[in-house]
Amino acid sequence: MAKVLTPRSESYAQWYNDLVIKAGLAENSAVRGCMVIKPYGYAIWEKMQRVLDDKFKETGHQNAYFPLFIPKSFFSKEADHVEGFAKECAVVTHYRLKNNPDGSGVVVDPDAKLEEEYIVRPTSETIIWNTYKDWIQSYRDLPIKINQWANVVRWEMRTRLFLRTAEFLWQEGHTAHATKEEAIEEAETMLKVYADFAENYMAMPVVQGYKTASERFAGAVETLTIEALMQDGKALQSGTSHFLGQNFAKVFDVKYQSKEGKEEYVWATSWGVSTRLMGALIMAHSDDNGLVLPPKLAPIQVVIVPIYRKEEELKQVVDKADEIAAALKKFGISVKVDDDDNHKPGWKFAQYELQGVPLRIAIGPRDLQNGTVELARRDTLTKEVVAVDGLENHINDLLEEIQDSIYQRAIDFRKENTRTVETYEEFKKVLDEKGGFIMAHWDGTEETEEKIKQETKATVRCIPIDGPKEPGKCMVTGKPSERMVVFARAY
Amino acid sequence: MAKVLTPRSESYAQWYNDLVIKAGLAENSAVRGCMVIKPYGYAIWEKMQRVLDDKFKETGHQNAYFPLFIPKSFFSKEADHVEGFAKECAVVTHYRLKNNPDGSGVVVDPDAKLEEEYIVRPTSETIIWNTYKDWIQSYRDLPIKINQWANVVRWEMRTRLFLRTAEFLWQEGHTAHATKEEAIEEAETMLKVYADFAENYMAMPVVQGYKTASERFAGAVETLTIEALMQDGKALQSGTSHFLGQNFAKVFDVKYQSKEGKEEYVWATSWGVSTRLMGALIMAHSDDNGLVLPPKLAPIQVVIVPIYRKEEELKQVVDKADEIAAALKKFGISVKVDDDDNHKPGWKFAQYELQGVPLRIAIGPRDLQNGTVELARRDTLTKEVVAVDGLENHINDLLEEIQDSIYQRAIDFRKENTRTVETYEEFKKVLDEKGGFIMAHWDGTEETEEKIKQETKATVRCIPIDGPKEPGKCMVTGKPSERMVVFARAY
Repeated sequence: MAKVLTPRSESYAQWYNDLVIKAGLAENSAVRGCMVIKPYGYAIWEKMQRVLDDKFKETGHQNAYFPLFIPKSFFSKEADHVEGFAKECAVVTHYRLKNNPDGSGVVVDPDAKLEEEYIVRPTSETIIWNTYKDWIQSYRDLPIKINQWANVVRWEMRTRLFLRTAEFLWQEGHTAHATKEEAIEEAETMLKVYADFAENYMAMPVVQGYKTASERFAGAVETLTIEALMQDGKALQSGTSHFLGQNFAKVFDVKYQSKEGKEEYVWATSWGVSTRLMGALIMAHSDDNGLVLPPKLAPIQVVIVPIYRKEEELKQVVDKADEIAAALKKFGISVKVDDDDNHKPGWKFAQYELQGVPLRIAIGPRDLQNGTVELARRDTLTKEVVAVDGLENHINDLLEEIQDSIYQRAIDFRKENTRTVETYEEFKKVLDEKGGFIMAHWDGTEETEEKIKQETKATVRCIPIDGPKEPGKCMVTGKPSERMVVFARAY
Repeated sequence: MAKVLTPRSESYAQWYNDLVIKAGLAENSAVRGCMVIKPYGYAIWEKMQRVLDDKFKETGHQNAYFPLFIPKSFFSKEADHVEGFAKECAVVTHYRLKNNPDGSGVVVDPDAKLEEEYIVRPTSETIIWNTYKDWIQSYRDLPIKINQWANVVRWEMRTRLFLRTAEFLWQEGHTAHATKEEAIEEAETMLKVYADFAENYMAMPVVQGYKTASERFAGAVETLTIEALMQDGKALQSGTSHFLGQNFAKVFDVKYQSKEGKEEYVWATSWGVSTRLMGALIMAHSDDNGLVLPPKLAPIQVVIVPIYRKEEELKQVVDKADEIAAALKKFGISVKVDDDDNHKPGWKFAQYELQGVPLRIAIGPRDLQNGTVELARRDTLTKEVVAVDGLENHINDLLEEIQDSIYQRAIDFRKENTRTVETYEEFKKVLDEKGGFIMAHWDGTEETEEKIKQETKATVRCIPIDGPKEPGKCMVTGKPSERMVVFARAY
């Protein structure tokens, strides 16, 4: 069968785009930079949402919903925040259209100009902290731990499906605390929730760490990040959790009375992951045949394809397939029987490979006689003939094994592609020839960071939370460095 | 205890607003006409979403996501649709802000004007049918049955929390079919899904029927509706399902090749319910003490309030409360133990009444001795002392009984407030003195409908699907009428 995807070796970027389109995950729309998330892609996103939402609730958060629009003046209040977010954004200036006098459709009604323009939210700190002002008077009102599932818009010039789009879907947590310590603890807790999700559901190992000042969220005192390594050796920032200090409390004047009767500004965090995770998931595991999905996030975990030549075989085979499906469903396994007569088995096999269904069962007349099925693993592309007897247990175990196995493979890949360098020459050589994560000493200054970025397009992905803290000398300036940091070129 | 809500008898509108605010469901925001949905309100909305989403999936639908923005030109294509939707809307004209040269914050960058303006979606038929064009070639591609959970914006001048807001949350189903019959069946099926949800989850009886031509969705051939009666005698349109014919297929040129090899335009439906349902739910059952929630949609079904005077009683009572809570949770009952020491039991009782928690358990030291608890029902405001032994079963039964009971009460209310009139004089008298649903003959013309609306503010809510079809004479013109229709003043 002809390959439907550009091979990764030929063009990783084209392979990615082909895969997103051909697997039915998403496509570009008539609106510049905005995507359509197609049903199969959305089903994966829904699985992600459900797991994350449960974790947020387990850690004491509640969902709420705040307005899509933010008054322009709100963005003038936090100086860093406006630089970071309010510049490239969708601006609503009018609230009415009218028929074009020349009869050609509709035009904006100039009489319906807003007194103050609205920005379509690029992130909601400002509107939320403006709201929290009315919710918080006393320490008894704290903490507030809220999450919002929403769409946001950032006017990106160069967009790529899931990875960078003008509109995207995300969740944004916004919490308010009485003390600095509690807010820092919250930011750290949520980073751990993200890391746990990435590793145990997406099967994608991540490095947890702090962003440097220049890579921080606009308005944050400290930004924590999880960084994953893609197959092409580039890093992908997969989730961030920010300790915002009292910055937003100060600009929106949010104070509380402490137990001791003192007025204090409130401490804040925010944290988010987005449909960008879809891009990470795709790139972390997939191959030239298509998507490879971790079983825990696969909308269909097992597909059953009935095989038959003669019409009279059809019913028997499909009946058996339905019986197996029912048994699997009882185990909580999501299963689809594809008895669509419009396509041949070979076409279906390729299709489900493309869509990353972890396990495929083929069952034909001979299998009925032998009490067997053919079981194919998507991740290893291996097949085995197994007994129908005890199939549920076997498949249950196998799904766990696949989840572990692709995680282990991603860990191995990252290990192979994490290198330590001593000199800037070596750094540049490794970066160009191998890519991957590069551990190196850096003097901690923005100047050196900027020089490296300008000269190599690599950035400090993070200052890791864990790992050894051995002092050394900056590879560029030779100045003292407390510890190695993680560099990479990034998405 | 002083009443926190304006009594309904004094001002129904003020009671509603008080309730929404005081029960922590929603509040107005800094953005004109846009609300903040607060955690408790959002938790109810999430319960609604979960039930509806499961029903959509059971009936063969998949979720997807389409862009927030719609190019202005798309609205020029369907003439009725532009009249209905594109007029009062949020228009994005620019994509950048810049620092104000005078240093006072940010201004819109005049150099960043869009070539074609975008409309923030008021509904997504146009962008979705523009997309379906690329998805549909053959009858094999049909049907497409997609639902989207999204925010939409309609620039309403007079807004009320949940009932009418500039931005609101909703789901919109958009399906494409090969035949007219299949599309009509889909529209009817989804109306039944809505009616089932309203009656069996919201405990709110609805009349199912067809909208008159003047009340149809802009662009629809036929609009089906469910209409509920609120306690103040006004109707509330609670969900609509539209048979769109080939209108959108024609303007976006969406054709398919039939089995017989003929090119045909595709048939369409769309259907939606929104956060307006929150308003309906509130108004259907609540009283002067606050919200009354049907147990199936209550985020907290049972609250347990420990009662103690001395510190040494605290632990014993709370331990027992936790034990009962654990037992109830095993039954799938959502339960909260409120051991917050900042508030007295009386305050908590009032608070949970306000928030409509269906059952409240109070447990004190004497209960521990007697092996009992005090159980209070929110809907009837009655109390009983019951044994802890077998409490789970009792509560399980009681929750079902409450669900049935508030539904029956709403049915009774509607029965008492549905009246049949013969003459226009009688119609006006009943409308002014009693309100409610009024069954009357109407000649089927837009002129008469408009005259009635102008003179009485009542509209034809629907032409019922069920019920007797007895011919008669229009109460206004005396012209022949095939059957009575449902009139009411409406939200």
